[in-house]
Amino acid sequence: MEKVHVIKVGGAVIEDEEKLSVFLDSFSAIKEKKILIHGGGRVATDIGKKLGIEPTMVEGRRVTDEKTLDLVTMVYGGLVNKKLVARLQKMDQNGIGLTGADGSLIESKKRPVRNGVDYGWVGDPIRVNVKIVADLLKAGLIPVIAPLTHDGHGQLFNTNADTMAGVMAKALVDSFDVYLHMTFELDGVLKDVNDPASLIAEMKKEDFEHYKQSGVIHSGMIPKLENAFEAIDSGVRQVRICKFDQVNPQKSSGTRLTQ
Amino acid sequence: MEKVHVIKVGGAVIEDEEKLSVFLDSFSAIKEKKILIHGGGRVATDIGKKLGIEPTMVEGRRVTDEKTLDLVTMVYGGLVNKKLVARLQKMDQNGIGLTGADGSLIESKKRPVRNGVDYGWVGDPIRVNVKIVADLLKAGLIPVIAPLTHDGHGQLFNTNADTMAGVMAKALVDSFDVYLHMTFELDGVLKDVNDPASLIAEMKKEDFEHYKQSGVIHSGMIPKLENAFEAIDSGVRQVRICKFDQVNPQKSSGTRLTQ
Repeated sequence: MEKVHVIKVGGAVIEDEEKLSVFLDSFSAIKEKKILIHGGGRVATDIGKKLGIEPTMVEGRRVTDEKTLDLVTMVYGGLVNKKLVARLQKMDQNGIGLTGADGSLIESKKRPVRNGVDYGWVGDPIRVNVKIVADLLKAGLIPVIAPLTHDGHGQLFNTNADTMAGVMAKALVDSFDVYLHMTFELDGVLKDVNDPASLIAEMKKEDFEHYKQSGVIHSGMIPKLENAFEAIDSGVRQVRICKFDQVNPQKSSGTRLTQ
Repeated sequence: MEKVHVIKVGGAVIEDEEKLSVFLDSFSAIKEKKILIHGGGRVATDIGKKLGIEPTMVEGRRVTDEKTLDLVTMVYGGLVNKKLVARLQKMDQNGIGLTGADGSLIESKKRPVRNGVDYGWVGDPIRVNVKIVADLLKAGLIPVIAPLTHDGHGQLFNTNADTMAGVMAKALVDSFDVYLHMTFELDGVLKDVNDPASLIAEMKKEDFEHYKQSGVIHSGMIPKLENAFEAIDSGVRQVRICKFDQVNPQKSSGTRLTQ
């Protein structure tokens, strides 16, 4: 089967001109089929403030009310996504900027109220339109996907980009050899966050369980890795957690997760 | 050759819930391949005001400065475009929301300074990526295109939706039988704007010249019709100027332009 790379990049990288530039150089070096899924970033908060949209917090969690949904649709689906596409075009990378609503690429369900917390217009992915993704890739296009989905009944949703990348990767395993690259600002999974030399180059699921129990891996890294191992269990060939400038798969840096 | 319909709808219709609803019903009734090109609308001005972006006017013309470009990229390419796509998805119409930058669908050149007036980041289309448009249509998708283009070197542009529709229609004539539908709020081209009974049902180029000389057709309608006859001259099968609720080509309402 043909290879496809699913690459997730966070909003913080996209907002930083210097980081974005090195990320895009690394991304462009990938010659095989590829899909970029990007996060949002603080620009939405900044623009929201000017529009008088204050972040709504419930039980310490950010809630996507109607106005916030409009805001992220504008900023992530419009400003961030289209600027990214224009940049890629300049590099002869034929990007096509999309959300999960476009071509019904990713359909979601509204996140149910949990412990009395209603997250508002937040969607959890339930379905990927694999045929359309394959058609776009076949046409030589590079899908550049903003963190938004829809329910198929006219409702858009704010959706977590990590989750979207995982779901996309898993959905493609019957049609492609899928490589998932989750980029962030560190070199990979570190035993000691302050020591780059403590990088874990390779991790199996049993290692993860071990690190989790001993407390070496904790807080935000746990859902990220659970998401990643789920992809591995579903048939994704490799998941790599690496720095944003190391996305070119020729490099074997970062943390590689295998079965 | 297979038929394709290129339909242009203005921002004023999209912003009006009732009008949008009848437009989309009419649009959905088209069973053949189709492309929707939409205008912007006042919502950008409203959001711009809140963001402190005042329209810049030079010699009575609106200028697209850097901030205004960001604004229309957000609002037209994000908010308006994605809401439209979500609505179409609800109607089982597989829309894919794009700008001219996506897949490099429409490449433009910055409008040159004329008579000392610099329009800023306004682009005039020079090239359509017919292969990608054909691939999207073949995949069963309905391109829904916002009034933005790019120069292929990283620069986005604000672009007139009427022009984009004309350019798209003309570019497709070697691959499809192209039908262009320019919708607006009147029943078609009227001899007397206050009298719906004065509709001109059919118009040839010589009629247009005649109406122009006699002053029956004037002001904003002239460039619209020139644009339309240019499409006819380039091989577009038919151009129809009609009300937004009459876009279904089964209806023969509006003004039909022929060679």
